[in-house]
Amino acid sequence: MSKVAVIVTDMFEDSEYTKPVEAIKQAGHQTINIGLQEAATVKGKKEGTPVKIDRAVQDVSTADFDALLIPGGYSPDILRTDERAVQFVREFVEKGKPVFSICHAPQLLITADVLRGRKITGYKSIIQDIKNAGAQFVDQEVVVDDNLVSSRNPNDIPAFVRECLNKLKG
Amino acid sequence: MSKVAVIVTDMFEDSEYTKPVEAIKQAGHQTINIGLQEAATVKGKKEGTPVKIDRAVQDVSTADFDALLIPGGYSPDILRTDERAVQFVREFVEKGKPVFSICHAPQLLITADVLRGRKITGYKSIIQDIKNAGAQFVDQEVVVDDNLVSSRNPNDIPAFVRECLNKLKG
Repeated sequence: MSKVAVIVTDMFEDSEYTKPVEAIKQAGHQTINIGLQEAATVKGKKEGTPVKIDRAVQDVSTADFDALLIPGGYSPDILRTDERAVQFVREFVEKGKPVFSICHAPQLLITADVLRGRKITGYKSIIQDIKNAGAQFVDQEVVVDDNLVSSRNPNDIPAFVRECLNKLKG
Repeated sequence: MSKVAVIVTDMFEDSEYTKPVEAIKQAGHQTINIGLQEAATVKGKKEGTPVKIDRAVQDVSTADFDALLIPGGYSPDILRTDERAVQFVREFVEKGKPVFSICHAPQLLITADVLRGRKITGYKSIIQDIKNAGAQFVDQEVVVDDNLVSSRNPNDIPAFVRECLNKLKG
């Protein structure tokens, strides 16, 4: 059983939270919602899906988790203004723990400056940002580069979930 | 009298549209709302301010305008997925016409790849993207670099408007 941190705040893309979290739990793993304020309820961008934050990012350590999921939408744009959230994400990548990135999630990885030389995909609006960050943008439904699993948008969720679960097995 | 194109779509930061547009009109200039679909009504992110699109971006030429205003919010993230919108913005910068950029507006300039060697400011979440695009990020309320006027967020609007109007005088 793996413990997966899910870093999320308001305006997340609903299905990019709900579907991977459901699949990770069904596979027998645990998910913990990490946000900017403990016990706050954040909401999805399209459907207003409520998500209760279990722990504030400043109160947890990457050592407590086996992997990180970053849903997309505009949640990453908000999270990347918080240096503690950026540092939390940076440590997962640098420690080689699995990081699951979908849609706008690479924005957090760009601010963490951990994409140089990596292969990654993401939402079409941020392609130039991904390239400028020194990464190789790959236009396919899922890209696996060592510990980094990435997809482009909600249509890619089945492939994304499959590769995320593969990483949790290992 | 100058003709100012305002490129905007849903989720724009309300005050970053309403206040500069009001000031530009009061100074005797004309503003024309350019969007992805003629006659559509787009809405602001926080207050739902309705804005009627006057002309679709594919139906206009930069030659028809003297300057460009790009309000922030999440509107630029949506607009930059449209190659015609990106090309429209690129031409203003390359032709040396005044470009007024606030908050998330530099995202459009990044995708247009026109920021190399420029001095610019913008919203704090996109600082790393601005630097990675080859620009010099300057943390002040308004930055004027030749034809490019930029500010960080709604608090900077008074200084932003002042420098925008200065450019329309010239």
